[in-house]
Amino acid sequence: MATFQLDTFLAAQQARVEALLNERMNRLGPAGTPPRLAEAMHYSLMAGGKRLRPVLCLAFADIVARESTVSAVAGDAACALEYVHTYSLVHDDLPAMDNDDYRRGRLTNHKVYGEPMAILAGDALLTEAFTLVASGPEAARAALCRELAVAAGAAGMVGGQVLDIAEDRPAALDYLLRLHRMKTGALIRAACRMGVLAGGGDADALARAAAYGEAVGLAFQIADDVLDVTATAEQLGKPAGADAAAGRFTFPAVVGLEASRKLAKEKVSEAIAAVRPLEGEDGPLAALARYTVERQS
Amino acid sequence: MATFQLDTFLAAQQARVEALLNERMNRLGPAGTPPRLAEAMHYSLMAGGKRLRPVLCLAFADIVARESTVSAVAGDAACALEYVHTYSLVHDDLPAMDNDDYRRGRLTNHKVYGEPMAILAGDALLTEAFTLVASGPEAARAALCRELAVAAGAAGMVGGQVLDIAEDRPAALDYLLRLHRMKTGALIRAACRMGVLAGGGDADALARAAAYGEAVGLAFQIADDVLDVTATAEQLGKPAGADAAAGRFTFPAVVGLEASRKLAKEKVSEAIAAVRPLEGEDGPLAALARYTVERQS
Repeated sequence: MATFQLDTFLAAQQARVEALLNERMNRLGPAGTPPRLAEAMHYSLMAGGKRLRPVLCLAFADIVARESTVSAVAGDAACALEYVHTYSLVHDDLPAMDNDDYRRGRLTNHKVYGEPMAILAGDALLTEAFTLVASGPEAARAALCRELAVAAGAAGMVGGQVLDIAEDRPAALDYLLRLHRMKTGALIRAACRMGVLAGGGDADALARAAAYGEAVGLAFQIADDVLDVTATAEQLGKPAGADAAAGRFTFPAVVGLEASRKLAKEKVSEAIAAVRPLEGEDGPLAALARYTVERQS
Repeated sequence: MATFQLDTFLAAQQARVEALLNERMNRLGPAGTPPRLAEAMHYSLMAGGKRLRPVLCLAFADIVARESTVSAVAGDAACALEYVHTYSLVHDDLPAMDNDDYRRGRLTNHKVYGEPMAILAGDALLTEAFTLVASGPEAARAALCRELAVAAGAAGMVGGQVLDIAEDRPAALDYLLRLHRMKTGALIRAACRMGVLAGGGDADALARAAAYGEAVGLAFQIADDVLDVTATAEQLGKPAGADAAAGRFTFPAVVGLEASRKLAKEKVSEAIAAVRPLEGEDGPLAALARYTVERQS
């Protein structure tokens, strides 16, 4: 059994991410951002959450750089990933999209700031992600911009969201796999690869990060679908069973609950195998992979 | 009087931009973009328009590089600017924002594809702009990403739009100037600077491009406001007098029609003076500056 103390590690890394995000948010006002816009961006960005993408990015950067002091470029990459993830949630929650009133137990952005501001706060978070990644002298920055843009774009996250809202969605496993590889998988994969790029890792480390990210991304999404069936609203911070109520095709709906859990576990094993040469036995990446399916919310 | 043939130049440059945009749009499908998303992006991107930002970018790139064969990086920068401009129009037209049914004489994106797809097509155009600029080996690409992101972001275009929809907008010239410097000026300024960066120009050329872009951007916006008062709906491709009808503060509303025209002309003179050392007398940049206020639509 693993002895790595994930709880302690995760709490420390999440605190590190909060500090990095706060530093960067504090620069917005002086740079000329209208206060109400800065407030709306801050509201959703600092609403908690697992910070999975930045934590993965920093973990890979630390491992390939063999140091735990974060470089400016790794910190920027980690924060940019959370900016992009947050923008996607703000836009997904809009009345024209999922029309959600609550997110992480708090009112959604448009419920607090109105729909026009929520659209613009999302646009600004997406754009500022690229300001963060592109600002600095390090040679890795153009590659980081490309990685982030491709993962977030038309053949990545946005494309996956389009597949998700399509009216003619087939209830087929291959469609569901493609959808989630694009909608959530691409950005999680990019988080891992961006950590390697920021930490100066080689091509082998990049390939391992991609394999790990793909597997963990899928395991995470399957676990999300399973939690929607099995967890309580209190654990989730939003109504449970919302996916089924909305008639959404989920992994449990398409292949059943047990087959979903089995697939998620297989993906976790794949992820752990991919990074063993990087971190050895019982490291943070293995623990994070297990966490994606063992979490309760 | 100027003898530079602007009509010929502009038609040729606009055709060049259409070809560059088409090339890049044709790559979306094979890269894995869902067809309906690619179609919605294409619909708004290829809806015509003056292509002012890419034309300015290419003009600066040609002048500082002293060649008219566009490099891949200048082409990518030019197209990225039009992607960002188009995304801003698609989101501005949304029911929650300006709720416009027509743009350039055609139905707006959400009227054709629905509101969710219009939000996502805008998101995708913004993101793909960074894919374009960040993809390639040239050293200028990170600086180009930064220039584009800063101009389009919270202290630039998005911030300007927030100032524009604020309920407590003062009817004051300084607020109007700040609003337009951010909402339209920042991206036009970036278009000029990105041309210099892509063409390998020096710090003096960059500063001249910034001065020119700021002046032209403001002149362009003032001319837009003046046209809304003086042009016909047929010339504009949208209802004339829409700004006044919507109770929007415009330059004519705040300082009057004649003072608006005078300010626009002053800005054109400033712009022309800034770039004379780069292109000499009677070059394309001077002609483009004059065009921003002399156009009929």
